Parts: sequence; structure tokens; C-alpha cells
Amino acid sequence: MKNFIKLEKQEGARIELHDKLNLTGSEISINVLPANGAIPFIHSHKQNEEVYFIIKGSGKFIVDGEEIYLSEGDFIKIDPVGKRQIFASENGISYLCIQSKVNSLEGYTLEDAIVG
Amino acid sequence: MKNFIKLEKQEGARIELHDKLNLTGSEISINVLPANGAIPFIHSHKQNEEVYFIIKGSGKFIVDGEEIYLSEGDFIKIDPVGKRQIFASENGISYLCIQSKVNSLEGYTLEDAIVG
Repeated sequence: MKNFIKLEKQEGARIELHDKLNLTGSEISINVLPANGAIPFIHSHKQNEEVYFIIKGSGKFIVDGEEIYLSEGDFIKIDPVGKRQIFASENGISYLCIQSKVNSLEGYTLEDAIVG
Repeated sequence: MKNFIKLEKQEGARIELHDKLNLTGSEISINVLPANGAIPFIHSHKQNEEVYFIIKGSGKFIVDGEEIYLSEGDFIKIDPVGKRQIFASENGISYLCIQSKVNSLEGYTLEDAIVG
């Protein structure tokens, strides 16, 4: 068994990577909304925090009723209880959504690394 | 306290987001290697899996001695024990590195979501 899985660039409105990459510490999805598109519901989470990374385009997030404008290269982290909605601008938007369980991370970077 | 943190596009060779976004389930870093640059050491991890997402450019990863070529939009997931090295191509490379603790994810997406 190799210790890595490579996945080439994916095309589609929503690609979930959990099973493709055999993820065990996070779920990552690639999402594409067309111009003026939207996720048609409000949602929150039970125990996962989410980090969104804007790959291309721009859009508006509404979290607990507050409007936040995001464009290429921006991030937003949302706690589980935040009630969120996502809207593309007239340019459309592509983003990664990274879910992980709150308080599950222990050491990281230097504490967790073995060099050599 | 708001249930979100926004972070605008960052510039720099390496930006670690853990403290900027108050992350508790993952660590995410933004990394930029110039043309023909490299991370100057081999490393593995104690308990974190890593997912790399190529934002721009291209490069070569070596994992346990095997060469893997990656370009914009590609992903690679590496198990903790994989011994990894990263090299930029002549175009340079920008990538996200997402660390999370192996086997820490429980429910995700529909199981973890609350709609409405």
C-alpha cells in the first residue's frame, strides 16, 4: 500500500473527496456555483467546523444574518453553530469546503513533524 | 462572539492559518515556492494526514522515493508515515497544505449537517 493518493483536477458542480482520497481527518469538497447561483438552503453543523477557500470568482456568504463578501484567495472559517448560506456573484464562484471535527487537532506542523 | 472569521487573500512564502482563523480541527497553510524552489528537507508526521491542493503552477512531490507530478487543481493526500519532499517546476508552485489528525473525523456532510 502506498502512503499517498493523487487526484487530478476534477470537473463538476460538487466533488466530494472523502472517498476519493480516503480521508480520515477531514472532508473536503470542491464546489462550483454559476453566475448568480446559490446553495438553496441554510445549514449549520453538529460538530464540524468548516473552512472555505475561494479558488476563483466571488460571492456572498451570509452567516447568522451577516453578509460577508469573498473573492479569489480569501478564506472564511465558520464554527459549527453558524447558520450559513452561500451565493455566487455575477462572476460565479468556485471554492473548497474543508470540514473537520472541532477540537480534534492535537500537535501540528513542528510538533507533529518528523524531519529526515 | 461571531461564529465566523474572514481572512482576506494573503501574500507571502508561507502563511499558517491556525491562529489567524482560530482553527481547532485542522491546520491549513498557504505555501509559495518560486521557480525551481524546494522545501529543503524530507518530512513525515506523527499523527496528522496531509492534503495538498495545488492553487497555481506545478511541481514534483517525492513520497517514499516515488515521483509524483502535480499541477493546478490537483490534490495529493499523504498518510502520516509517508516521507515527503516538494519541488517547484520552472513555473513555481502555490499550494494549500491541510493537516488533520488521522481518524478524527466522525460524521460529515449530511450526517453532521443541520438544515434550516
